[in-house]
Amino acid sequence: MKRFFFSSALMLTTLLTYAQQALWGGSQIVSPEIHDNQIVTFRLKAPKAVRVQVTGDFLNSESSEEGARVADLVEKDGVWEYTTPEPLKPELYSYTFLVDGLKINDPSNVFMIRDVQSVTNVFIIGGGRADLYKVNDVPHGTVAKVWYESPTAGMKRRMTVYTPAGYEDSGKRYPVFYLLHGMGGDENAWSELGRAAQILDNLIAQGKAKPMIVVMTNGNISQEAAPGETSNGFVSPTMRLPKTMEGSFETSFPDVVRYVDSHYRTIKSKHGRAIAGLSMGGFHSLHISKQYPDMFDYIGLFSAAILSDPKVDSPIYKDLEAKLKVQFGKKPALYYIAIGNTDFLYKANTDFRRMLDEKGYSYEYYESAEGHIWKNWRIYLTEFVPKLFK
Amino acid sequence: MKRFFFSSALMLTTLLTYAQQALWGGSQIVSPEIHDNQIVTFRLKAPKAVRVQVTGDFLNSESSEEGARVADLVEKDGVWEYTTPEPLKPELYSYTFLVDGLKINDPSNVFMIRDVQSVTNVFIIGGGRADLYKVNDVPHGTVAKVWYESPTAGMKRRMTVYTPAGYEDSGKRYPVFYLLHGMGGDENAWSELGRAAQILDNLIAQGKAKPMIVVMTNGNISQEAAPGETSNGFVSPTMRLPKTMEGSFETSFPDVVRYVDSHYRTIKSKHGRAIAGLSMGGFHSLHISKQYPDMFDYIGLFSAAILSDPKVDSPIYKDLEAKLKVQFGKKPALYYIAIGNTDFLYKANTDFRRMLDEKGYSYEYYESAEGHIWKNWRIYLTEFVPKLFK
Repeated sequence: MKRFFFSSALMLTTLLTYAQQALWGGSQIVSPEIHDNQIVTFRLKAPKAVRVQVTGDFLNSESSEEGARVADLVEKDGVWEYTTPEPLKPELYSYTFLVDGLKINDPSNVFMIRDVQSVTNVFIIGGGRADLYKVNDVPHGTVAKVWYESPTAGMKRRMTVYTPAGYEDSGKRYPVFYLLHGMGGDENAWSELGRAAQILDNLIAQGKAKPMIVVMTNGNISQEAAPGETSNGFVSPTMRLPKTMEGSFETSFPDVVRYVDSHYRTIKSKHGRAIAGLSMGGFHSLHISKQYPDMFDYIGLFSAAILSDPKVDSPIYKDLEAKLKVQFGKKPALYYIAIGNTDFLYKANTDFRRMLDEKGYSYEYYESAEGHIWKNWRIYLTEFVPKLFK
Repeated sequence: MKRFFFSSALMLTTLLTYAQQALWGGSQIVSPEIHDNQIVTFRLKAPKAVRVQVTGDFLNSESSEEGARVADLVEKDGVWEYTTPEPLKPELYSYTFLVDGLKINDPSNVFMIRDVQSVTNVFIIGGGRADLYKVNDVPHGTVAKVWYESPTAGMKRRMTVYTPAGYEDSGKRYPVFYLLHGMGGDENAWSELGRAAQILDNLIAQGKAKPMIVVMTNGNISQEAAPGETSNGFVSPTMRLPKTMEGSFETSFPDVVRYVDSHYRTIKSKHGRAIAGLSMGGFHSLHISKQYPDMFDYIGLFSAAILSDPKVDSPIYKDLEAKLKVQFGKKPALYYIAIGNTDFLYKANTDFRRMLDEKGYSYEYYESAEGHIWKNWRIYLTEFVPKLFK
């Protein structure tokens, strides 16, 4: 027996060499290389390219001009390279390369995030708030992809559920934060682009947030789930979906709450529930929270799409003024509005706040720089979560 | 109030146009286009390219020569195109483009899977067994990323847990199938490359498999979790990790079983447990199942790395013959060996089977075409799962 095993000519190195018999080998180039001083070097091996550029939000992040967000790499021995002239500020950054005008992902960096149809490489410069976006050596919650029945929508639907570290063993009841994506997003958006699980893990570990369940739904009522996760197959993601912002998702929302309350150890009352969303999800949060004024004590509108389409005729959107009066009459623990000062929705949010002011409805306001971007939505999440369930 | 909302100059179309203020727009090219007759067209817009090729396992999948797996696209008006001359057989296929020799992903296809350092685009041609790899309109299980405590390994570790549709509401106890990845893989490999959740959903819905929990561990004891999921940050994945196949993972395995049995409604006995793995995971399954002969009634070795490194000195690998004698003396319900006839481990597996034959130990054997590839591991999974817990 010993002979049999030990006489084998195949050694572990064989496994390492042949393993997977892959068609495509990995690149040996290191990119991005994050130096200790937060200077970053990007590299791409492309011996036949004429021009290689890098584009990303780490370039002149204060500028809104796209032209300012492209830098040229310099070639040596077939490897192109660009090093940032300055250290980068702490942040989660996205980038791609342009090779003779063709956008490509960095083959040396397997970390990518999809935003609608765009897949970009990502990296994190740690420090300050950006440390909340990193996986740190803290207890981690569970992230689950869960299918729930929505009788109102007439289908099973997929959602992402975060349960905090310790949930499985504590026997306790937890408050629930419902976190909604924007147009073009889905139930994966907040956990991937938004780093929601990392932000919650870190804020809870630091004692800055209460342990809570976070439920990330799919707000596109024409979909059961994210592209690729339904029987429609690998369909291309799109911004333009039918039945968007016409009331059906809001009407079906109590199905979500009912499922969560019957399948998790939740605090089944208004003071144990929060709802917030970005852009279209802010619009959803506004309308759901006022439609069901006894359901949520904490409401967050992040760059909310406070818009209305006169062609849409849904009972959800009717009698807005009267419903807001009822909602604010019940004194929510927190009504929170956040937006960037260059957001195309800035004026709509300013008008909305003015109306709240006129009525004497109290809310908290957070204004950031820049516009309608994930950088801001991660910031708003880190600001909002510590205020919940206190 | 009505005035406020309806006088807004911003309409929904604004949202659609400006949403996300993304730096990178999606391509309008359709690729891959899967025609009704299972002919596939690939397209890439690259006006400045001199030569564009596609490489993938859909090209001459019977051939092992890499040269046979590259096809040239033809350019017209800046868009390159290639159409397969024949319908493709049902399968999950991987591909990338080569643009003047540079490997790039298809910018029109957001569906990609990582295998170690390589990220490739994927598509599925349905029919036959490949329908098991698709998301179909059947009840779906829950897929969760769970952290468990491993006192033996001295750390918290991450795993993927599939619970079948109905688990949350049935109140029943379920058998557990432990499914292990190969070298270079991690706790995400079987659910992503292996389509394990889809295969289980479909086999269970068809009544061909018992509802079961599937636990997909991380077999690299030097990692807590997959690259990017630990405090090491976005580290590049690698085949070469320390402490691989030297006994530590096998020794820590009872921690996994203990966690699962104390956190899920399981059948807590040998007849309710199966273990299988591919390549290094087959090696792990062999050694774990014989080390703990009362733990698993169903054992599967898929393209198992039946190798031994004489330099490794672990009690796990000692007295193999005596331990196998004990294990087979307890008559496991199923000992299953599967391998491809061009696998570099074919001889090692043949030698191992010959030894089992000589000892009179009974096992089932499944031999496929081709080698050490995910196509085969998905096939073995679909063959193995229906045999469990019957």
